[in-house]
This record gives sequence, structure tokens and C-alpha cells, in this order.
Amino acid sequence: MIRDLTDDQARAALPLKWGAVAPGVIPAWVAEMDYRPAEPIEEALVAAVRRGTAGYPAFGDAGLGAAFSGFAERHWGWPVPADATVPTGSVMAGIRLALELVCPPGPVVVPTPCYPPFRDAVAITGRELVPVPLDPDAETATMDLAEVEQAFAAGARTFLLCSPHNPLGRCWTREELTALADLARRYDVRVVSDEIHAPLTLPGATFTPYLTVDERAVVVTSASKSFNIPGVHGAQLVVLDPEDRARLLAAPIPAQNAWSVFGMIAGVAAWTDCDDWLAALVDRFDDQRSRLTDLLATHLPDARMRPLEATYLAWLDLRTYGIADPAGVALEHGVRLGPGSDYQPGLEGHVRVNLATSPERLESIVHRLATAVATSAP
Amino acid sequence: MIRDLTDDQARAALPLKWGAVAPGVIPAWVAEMDYRPAEPIEEALVAAVRRGTAGYPAFGDAGLGAAFSGFAERHWGWPVPADATVPTGSVMAGIRLALELVCPPGPVVVPTPCYPPFRDAVAITGRELVPVPLDPDAETATMDLAEVEQAFAAGARTFLLCSPHNPLGRCWTREELTALADLARRYDVRVVSDEIHAPLTLPGATFTPYLTVDERAVVVTSASKSFNIPGVHGAQLVVLDPEDRARLLAAPIPAQNAWSVFGMIAGVAAWTDCDDWLAALVDRFDDQRSRLTDLLATHLPDARMRPLEATYLAWLDLRTYGIADPAGVALEHGVRLGPGSDYQPGLEGHVRVNLATSPERLESIVHRLATAVATSAP
Repeated sequence: MIRDLTDDQARAALPLKWGAVAPGVIPAWVAEMDYRPAEPIEEALVAAVRRGTAGYPAFGDAGLGAAFSGFAERHWGWPVPADATVPTGSVMAGIRLALELVCPPGPVVVPTPCYPPFRDAVAITGRELVPVPLDPDAETATMDLAEVEQAFAAGARTFLLCSPHNPLGRCWTREELTALADLARRYDVRVVSDEIHAPLTLPGATFTPYLTVDERAVVVTSASKSFNIPGVHGAQLVVLDPEDRARLLAAPIPAQNAWSVFGMIAGVAAWTDCDDWLAALVDRFDDQRSRLTDLLATHLPDARMRPLEATYLAWLDLRTYGIADPAGVALEHGVRLGPGSDYQPGLEGHVRVNLATSPERLESIVHRLATAVATSAP
Repeated sequence: MIRDLTDDQARAALPLKWGAVAPGVIPAWVAEMDYRPAEPIEEALVAAVRRGTAGYPAFGDAGLGAAFSGFAERHWGWPVPADATVPTGSVMAGIRLALELVCPPGPVVVPTPCYPPFRDAVAITGRELVPVPLDPDAETATMDLAEVEQAFAAGARTFLLCSPHNPLGRCWTREELTALADLARRYDVRVVSDEIHAPLTLPGATFTPYLTVDERAVVVTSASKSFNIPGVHGAQLVVLDPEDRARLLAAPIPAQNAWSVFGMIAGVAAWTDCDDWLAALVDRFDDQRSRLTDLLATHLPDARMRPLEATYLAWLDLRTYGIADPAGVALEHGVRLGPGSDYQPGLEGHVRVNLATSPERLESIVHRLATAVATSAP
């Protein structure tokens, strides 16, 4: 059911992930999977192109909201109204719109490490960023709510959440999210929740849609991450308040990062017809995280990885090995990883590893990283 | 070579143009064509999807700049360097980036009527818009350079050009553009030139790339209009100055309206492999404009249409018939046109007619418009 790409196929299919590395290097950096998209999505896209569709999307959301509602109900028991969806071009376009049109002025709190474009979105909307770093030595990767409250008390008016969290791989519990929502309510803070990784919650964890604990939030999501289709350009804001929604719907074309007809078609197919494929994908990731744990125990026993609860992106703490930039040395040994400092400027000794590949490649990734570390350790 | 869509096919293929009208109504409003895209583009897109491509585009421009250079040299004798291209998501995203990152602050001059999102782009980038309206009674649709100079002298620092012009259908002459460039140089004004319609220059007119008369300009273009593929999400800024280009290339993801891998693939195919298709398309439009002229002479003899030199969008002056909103009455009689007031707020008696359809539909469009006018005239 999961159709693995060979190296040659992956190089042809994934021009960013595989095109940005020299032949022989395994790319385990950007969040793309070395698998073909689900067959229902592939067939829907081919059928669209064959019938001559390559133009503007229809007015409205072309069924995207209803499809997402069905998915949310089946997977999370969340009865979100179909009309809560406002289409947009990408999650980052949606976050920008939320900041510009829904959130009050004032500083934006961002737990770090974070997806790097979060910092850009805060900057280009003219906001001040208040990072709330995770202590890399903390036992579990949870938010420091005392520090968050301090930022709210000092004037922050927006909280930019990533739930589940990239790159930490955390699936926040209902209790954690409820505590955040309570604080947000007390300080009149708007929460923007990027939930693009939610379908990739792994066995053992339970995803809590943030809107079920804080109905004033703006959720931004897309099928693009879980279904490996960022090229189709479709995402959605999910907003319960009709006035907020009206503001977002009124944004003109040049503000919108307009969505593509392919994004709507692929999104509807993903939310509607791909449950089996997604289940197989989550199984694969469940296997891959066990494999990674075993491989690390054997080859990099001093690496630290907190439990991976969601996403296919593992966050490794390699500080014990005394190498400031392990991604840099790994690249010299044939594997490209995400440098930890991309996600938290100044953070040393961390890498993000992309597990969405074959078991064989994952073994090579760890072997090469272990060789790099052994060769380069002081 | 041009593959016409039947009504049923068009309704399935073009969800905006055909989905926004009731069954039986002919849509001749939004700028989409009732034809399937060129075969090389269709095959390139299907091949991409079949090999598993639906993800991020590669770093760089994936050959788009080189493909555009080849097209510009073959069609306009313009040796534009391949590295002058900076990819972006759409022409409007490119215009926004040009205004934000290259153009100085200060008012923006826009000849009107204009494509409505031009006004939005000026507004969301915090600029004041200085419209320079075309006198609807003018013999030819040319820019009033005296008024333009007045706006420059009063402090405008950017000129937003549409070349060839939508909705006027003008292909500006080299003399007109040189005069504009001289003024721009004298007042240190940056010109942003939307040249998305350039490949649709019709027999009798000659397209002049604006950068050949003013090398400080920012050109924004895309294959999306001429090749009927706005859904693929790819466009390009064309900029000769390396510093301007560096500023545009440094724009972060949330500012970029990031382009799609499909936009790059389809764009390269369009600029490289579709000359024959484009020649057949221009032939069709040449026929359609003659047909429209004849039909108007017979059925709407008091309609005024200046020569259509480029685009498949005709601008009709129906003021003689004394109807303020001819598009409104036309819709009641089974044809949807673009109301003139969309392009120039307050302008009465004008409509934009989309000719990119079959000869039979064009006949029906004019018949229905004539019936609407005859029924509604005071």
C-alpha cells in the first residue's frame, strides 16, 4: 500500500529533497516522504489534468471543508462544521493571514525549536517574536507555561502553536492544551495552531484538536504534509467565529496566496478516500521509530531521543558527543539532516532526522551519522 | 490543434468560469479559455504525477529562466539572460513582492481601467493609488502622459503597467513605452510591468518587452494566461539588476506565495514545446476578433470596440444604448460578461467579453447581449 521510491525514482519525483544532495548522499532533511502519494490522490490529479483542468478553483471551497469535517469526525471524534474551513494556499500563507487579519497587534509567543518560517511569518507581519525555548535538558518536551504567562503579562497577544509539534515530535495532551487555553483566555491572547501534522499522530498518543479547548483559536492545516503533496497548493484555515471567517474570506487575491484547483481536488481526495493508506503510513512510521530507537541504542548509544509521538521527524540530542554541528559532519559522511540550529538559532548538538523512507535507508542514515560522529568527536 | 471543450466538458474542466453560471448561461467573463491546455503541458503534468511528483520544487528555477529566454528570443528577438528570472507563485504575488522589496515608498500610478487585483496589491502594500483613467471617448486607448507626469511630479514613485493591456486589448508601441520610460527615468520612478498577455499579441501588432526600453523595470510574467494553466501556480519576476534580484530571492517562504513544482514543469513545457499550439491559438483569436467585429456590426451597430491588438478580452463601449450596467442585463439574457465598473469603478456602459471560446458560442454571446440591450434600452 505504501509505494516506496527507489533512489532513482526518488531523485526524479522529489526535486527538492533529493535534488539538493549529491549522488550517493541520503537526504533525510526536508519534510517529504520517499513514497508515492496515495493512489486515490494520484488518480484524482491525473483525471483532472486529462479532462483539461488546470485553471482557477471554483468560488467557495469545492467541498474541502465537508471532506475535512468527515476526516476530523472519523479520526478524532471532532464534529467541526464544514463551513468552518476557509481555503488558502499553504499553511504559512494561512498563518500570515491569521496574524494580519485576526490576531491583535503585539508580540507573538513561539515555543522553540520551531519550524523556521514561523520566525519569518512573525517578522513580515511586523510583530515582535518572543521565543519560549524548551530546555534541552528537560525530561519531557513540554511548554514552560510560567514563561509563557510572563510573556503574556508583558504584552504578547498571539501564541503560535505547532500541534503536534515539529521538530519535537510531541503530541500535546489535552491537559497541556487546556492549560495553555486557560492562560490565553485570561490574557486575551489569540492562539494560531498549525495542525498540519495531526493525521501523523502515532500509536500511543491521542491528538486533541486545539479548537476543542479554545474556540477562539485559528487552526491552520492541510493534507499536504500527511499525504506528501505540498506541490498541489491547498490548505485551510479552520475558524469557528463567523466574524473572523468573514475577515479571512474578504482578503483580496494578492493577500491570499491563492489556492490551486489541484489543492482542492487532492485535499478532498486525501480527507475522503485515503484512510487505509494513512493507516498503512502510520504503521510504517511506528516501525521506523522502533527501528530508529534500536539503531541508536546500537550505534549512537549516547544520543538522546524523547519518545516520538507524532510526525516522521525525530529530534536527536547529540550533545554528549561534543560536536557543535552534527548535521554538518553528517553531510560529509553521506547523509543530509536538518541542523538543530535551523529550528532554534544558537542551539548546538541537535539534528532533525526524517524517517519517511525505507528501513534500509534509515539504517544507512544512522550508520553514516554514527560514523560521522565517531570520526569527528573531539 | 486547439482542443475545444463541449459545454459539459467545460463545466467539468473549468470550475470557476463555468461553475459560476447557471446551466444554459454562457460564461464569457473570467480570463480562462474553453480549450484544453496544450498537449505537451498535459503530458508533462501527467508524467510528473505518475512518477510521484507532488512535492516541493527544487532550489533555483528548475530551468524556467532558460526556457523563458528561449521563448523571448524566438518570439520577440529579446536576448534576456536566463538568470534574470526569479520564480514566484503568481503574477499578483510577484507584483506584491516587487512593490514591497524593490519599489520605493510613495504613491503608485495605475492606468485605468485595470485588472481589479492591481488596486488590492497597491492597498495591501500600504501605497496610495493614483489612477490615470483613459478617457472613454478617446480615439485610441493610449496613456495620458501629461497626467502621468503630473502624478510623478506630485510624488508618485512607482508605475504599474499592464503590457499588453487588460482589459483594453492594447499592445503598447515601442514609442509609447519609450516615452513612459523617459518620464520614469526623469522622475526616478520604478515601473512594474505585468506582461502575462505578451504571447497573445495578435497579427498586426508587435510586442515590445518593457525591459528593452527601461532596464530598471521589474517585469512579472507567467505562462499561466497564454497557456490556460493558472492552476499550476508558477510565475516569474524578470529583473536585470543583480541587487534587485538578490532582494527578491531573499524573500522568505511566507512572503513568497511560493511556487509549485507543477508551475515550474508546466512553465518550462509552455515556453519550450508549445510554439505550434500558441500559433494555432493566436490564429483562432485572430478569427474570433474578426467574427466579433462582424457580429457587432450586424447586431450591435452602436457598440464601440477599438482594435483588439492583444489578449482574448474585448473591451466594448455600449454607452450609446443608455444602459448603466450592460453586464447585469446580459446575465439575465444568458451570458456572463465582465462589468466595466469592475475594472474602473464608476465607469458605466462598458463590458469585457472573453473570446476564448468556440465561434458558435461567440455568436450566441453577441446575440444574447444584443437581445439584452434591445430589451433593456430606455
